[in-house]
Amino acid sequence: MGKKDLLGSAPDQCSTALLLIDVINDLQFPEADELLRFAVPMAKRLQALKHESRRAGVPSIYINDNFGRWQSNFSALAKHCLSSRGREVAQMLRPRKDDYFVLKPKHSAFYSTTLDTLLRYLGAKRLIITGMAANICVWFTANDAYMRDFRLWVPKDCVCSNTTRENDFALQQMEHVLKADVRPFNSLRRHRFLTTISRK
Amino acid sequence: MGKKDLLGSAPDQCSTALLLIDVINDLQFPEADELLRFAVPMAKRLQALKHESRRAGVPSIYINDNFGRWQSNFSALAKHCLSSRGREVAQMLRPRKDDYFVLKPKHSAFYSTTLDTLLRYLGAKRLIITGMAANICVWFTANDAYMRDFRLWVPKDCVCSNTTRENDFALQQMEHVLKADVRPFNSLRRHRFLTTISRK
Amino acid sequence: MGKKDLLGSAPDQCSTALLLIDVINDLQFPEADELLRFAVPMAKRLQALKHESRRAGVPSIYINDNFGRWQSNFSALAKHCLSSRGREVAQMLRPRKDDYFVLKPKHSAFYSTTLDTLLRYLGAKRLIITGMAANICVWFTANDAYMRDFRLWVPKDCVCSNTTRENDFALQQMEHVLKADVRPFNSLRRHRFLTTISRK
Amino acid sequence: MGKKDLLGSAPDQCSTALLLIDVINDLQFPEADELLRFAVPMAKRLQALKHESRRAGVPSIYINDNFGRWQSNFSALAKHCLSSRGREVAQMLRPRKDDYFVLKPKHSAFYSTTLDTLLRYLGAKRLIITGMAANICVWFTANDAYMRDFRLWVPKDCVCSNTTRENDFALQQMEHVLKADVRPFNSLRRHRFLTTISRK
Repeated sequence: MGKKDLLGSAPDQCSTALLLIDVINDLQFPEADELLRFAVPMAKRLQALKHESRRAGVPSIYINDNFGRWQSNFSALAKHCLSSRGREVAQMLRPRKDDYFVLKPKHSAFYSTTLDTLLRYLGAKRLIITGMAANICVWFTANDAYMRDFRLWVPKDCVCSNTTRENDFALQQMEHVLKADVRPFNSLRRHRFLTTISRK
Repeated sequence: MGKKDLLGSAPDQCSTALLLIDVINDLQFPEADELLRFAVPMAKRLQALKHESRRAGVPSIYINDNFGRWQSNFSALAKHCLSSRGREVAQMLRPRKDDYFVLKPKHSAFYSTTLDTLLRYLGAKRLIITGMAANICVWFTANDAYMRDFRLWVPKDCVCSNTTRENDFALQQMEHVLKADVRPFNSLRRHRFLTTISRK
Repeated sequence: MGKKDLLGSAPDQCSTALLLIDVINDLQFPEADELLRFAVPMAKRLQALKHESRRAGVPSIYINDNFGRWQSNFSALAKHCLSSRGREVAQMLRPRKDDYFVLKPKHSAFYSTTLDTLLRYLGAKRLIITGMAANICVWFTANDAYMRDFRLWVPKDCVCSNTTRENDFALQQMEHVLKADVRPFNSLRRHRFLTTISRK
Repeated sequence: MGKKDLLGSAPDQCSTALLLIDVINDLQFPEADELLRFAVPMAKRLQALKHESRRAGVPSIYINDNFGRWQSNFSALAKHCLSSRGREVAQMLRPRKDDYFVLKPKHSAFYSTTLDTLLRYLGAKRLIITGMAANICVWFTANDAYMRDFRLWVPKDCVCSNTTRENDFALQQMEHVLKADVRPFNSLRRHRFLTTISRK
């Protein structure tokens, strides 16, 4: 399998990848207030998780809906969010130039997207799934990842939902049905973080 | 089926869509010289076809490899191509703000992309497939479109390949196996063009 | 779109289809006892629902894991289940010669299966999703159906799970997130059943 | 990745798999006479190739259209073909109980089928693609396999098409575009066969 076959793309190689789902978000929808209460503290921890991941060589993949139209590009979207209700979250999790971006038209990050192929080229076997909402897009994505035999870490302090009840149930089901590790990022010291992300 | 389910995207509605495959291309590969001979006259006709399509309300979808890295966005790519060997083609076919863009990681425009979902939301039943190379990415795409029951028009003067022999054979097979209409755009007067694109 | 393009297959045409998930099941797994308590009464109602669907021209599609090996065929599997712990359920829901069958290798009925294409040829826009378990394979399937813009009826008395709590939560989420109708089949008189399945 | 996750299926493990495309075929279509001239000698060589593959532990996967209806099972189909115009071919290539079977609704063996998942569980990296017609279903399949980064051997004496011209062109394109090995099986002595199928 030659890199040339990916027609010019040359992604990194890493057995773990960090997925950030719908965090670059203008939060201009009716239930956004509820979400926002949880999203800001979540973003703080996710920022730290992303930082640690970066130090460990784990690539970050932003997976995002496309507000407005399919023509939009991700940098325009990120810019738009910086002056929206989602600005605090978008600011903390602002994408870097070498982060990856996947446009998702529907709820799952795998449905009708480039993600499968990107992960194949990265050589990823294990995913850290983060973002919002835990009981919708994160869950749809986790289900699809599980069917593709990825091992999952869904750190419970790096996802959020509109209500605590939905969040807790989604995490329980991911732990029970999908065999996901749901320990919070915050509880891990650095050496345990590295063990967690590199575990087979 | 509510538009709201596409999470904010609001594509146009049209039973025909125009696909432009790999035309925004820096042509920085060994066999590009051969292709370039055919690509420039092709781009001239395709420019006119795109213009007519636009007048008829047919949306244009650029489907492109991602030179460099997955992080790139399409406007950066288009800009890069304007100062490359592919500049003449890229200049004539420069995307407009309301054209659609689909990143394809591999040869077919349908493989691991958002195209299927975009076409579903456009309501497209018929595709005009153009670009290059006719015997590679255009063909892979036409095969995949045929399996999804789209009706195909592959105007023979709006595709090209490295050699005439490969181009002719690809067109013959698309006509024979995929039941594609391969009449050149150039031969159609305006009223016949409109008939062609709106035919059930 | 000619029927001939499906290479010989000639499915029925109906805007609604009934999915029966994992009901032909030998129930030879550790947690099967819990499931069995709920599965037998569920099967009784599902048998009646299937009967009514048949009278209304709605095709039944069995979607099943493949116990043992991929070589197995569905009639052999159905026979095997008739002498297993799942015999009562399998007996009540025994497939007829003109029911459809889809082998699913994983949890969702849509993942790596023929279902998408079969439903396209049937012309189905609305799915009645039944079977087990509601919080696993039924849910994975309902999520995937929702992303494909099917309208969903998941009659709550025609699905079951290992525990009432998981069953209730799954149904709530399907109602809330997927906009599924979850009214029980049992509560509908015949004319309301027909209205329900033919609703746009 | 546990075998249990495939929900009971336990396929073999082998880095090479043999695909037999549409060889169990009643050949009841207009152009079948032309194909039959080439299909019978092809089947003789493919029978020998299948025998050698079996000795080397390479699993055989039959991939077949579904004549008649989706309800049919493969053993019924194989039986039907034994009393059709395709009987000579079907007789020579009669499936064994431990061969795999994949129903394909359209031309490519990968489109809307279980093949991707089956090959993942087999651990296959290299495919021997055989059967008919070389310029239709074999080619569609080879294209799709190439995009998924499989290495391909399409032994030119184990495929056939309606005409020699189409067959030759398809093989040339598979060699040129898909980097397929197209050397005939017949030219390989046993030790070279084993080298060919186990090559990285």
